[in-house]
Amino acid sequence: MAYVTSDLAVSVDGFVSGVNQTLERPFGDGQGDQLHRWMFETPDENAEELTAITAADAFIMGRNMFSPGRGDWDPEWTGWWGDDPPYHKPVFVLTHHPREDLPMKGGTTFSFVTGGIAEAFERAGEATGDGRISIAGGAATINQFLAAGLVDELRLHISPITLGAGERLFDGVPPLRLEQLSGRSASLVTHITYRVLR
Amino acid sequence: MAYVTSDLAVSVDGFVSGVNQTLERPFGDGQGDQLHRWMFETPDENAEELTAITAADAFIMGRNMFSPGRGDWDPEWTGWWGDDPPYHKPVFVLTHHPREDLPMKGGTTFSFVTGGIAEAFERAGEATGDGRISIAGGAATINQFLAAGLVDELRLHISPITLGAGERLFDGVPPLRLEQLSGRSASLVTHITYRVLR
Repeated sequence: MAYVTSDLAVSVDGFVSGVNQTLERPFGDGQGDQLHRWMFETPDENAEELTAITAADAFIMGRNMFSPGRGDWDPEWTGWWGDDPPYHKPVFVLTHHPREDLPMKGGTTFSFVTGGIAEAFERAGEATGDGRISIAGGAATINQFLAAGLVDELRLHISPITLGAGERLFDGVPPLRLEQLSGRSASLVTHITYRVLR
Repeated sequence: MAYVTSDLAVSVDGFVSGVNQTLERPFGDGQGDQLHRWMFETPDENAEELTAITAADAFIMGRNMFSPGRGDWDPEWTGWWGDDPPYHKPVFVLTHHPREDLPMKGGTTFSFVTGGIAEAFERAGEATGDGRISIAGGAATINQFLAAGLVDELRLHISPITLGAGERLFDGVPPLRLEQLSGRSASLVTHITYRVLR
């Protein structure tokens, strides 16, 4: 079986983004953009955790993480990450709208999956030869994988804000037993890694 | 002004207790009792944080933290903590039902306040000479103090479980800006201390 991880930047109250996400404000109104301050302002302090985020053999993400649009595809949109996305591996994007594979520079290929998390999980497993799959977000996608019992390791990166509303990690997920594998605080974030127990 | 702290044992999804709290199961159904495993199973590892929880000059708590009952007082009930509660200072209990002061061994006196958080805050401030006040819980009480902007320091003790339902920290509290003062992981818990910014 593949080993499935998920890295999530969350507020202290468990949100991965605020309300009213737009192209200009992909993390919504209010303080949502503060969730990633630690990445941009203190990368050296957090080098190990940052490297681990993209150290997988394949990635799965929800459409909302790939694109601000909904409905039919805008073929000009190739993700938030420019020509050379940081994944360098196959990325499976959950969507209701079929689209051709989108190969990018540096080894990233976005493939668009219309069969839900089961199909995405199967295709990522095939692509990795049962290696490491990262569920890249957003909350709705991770919550589906958590509820299905498909996540082995959850890595939370907790920023010192509360958002009060938005997309919440664990919404709709039955209670979980976790094992705390590690944790440490840097100046703008606390990292905690949990193993999800079955 | 008094300096106001609050220590909270929370699940990863931000609950301080599960649903259906009873005398026998004060933290509710399911895994709620696991929130305090770190206190009972690994006190040596967490000695500093445990000491800090009761290092205040006065305490404020909600009735639900003092007593499993509701409505009129059962005069036999003197709290969960036996003859010599761990507070050793004045403790102000929020309630709608007046009751005489209840002095205990070791310096703890429970006083029952019917005027809401404002009266409790004022009386605790008088009792401490603007020293240290700890908001001892539960979530409904802390959330009221947070919403009123009366908390200076929030100390979370995060246990490796999710509860999915129950009493949630930050419910009804407008978004907060926090400063992460410190954080560390022990084997069964991660402690994070935040300063609440105004």
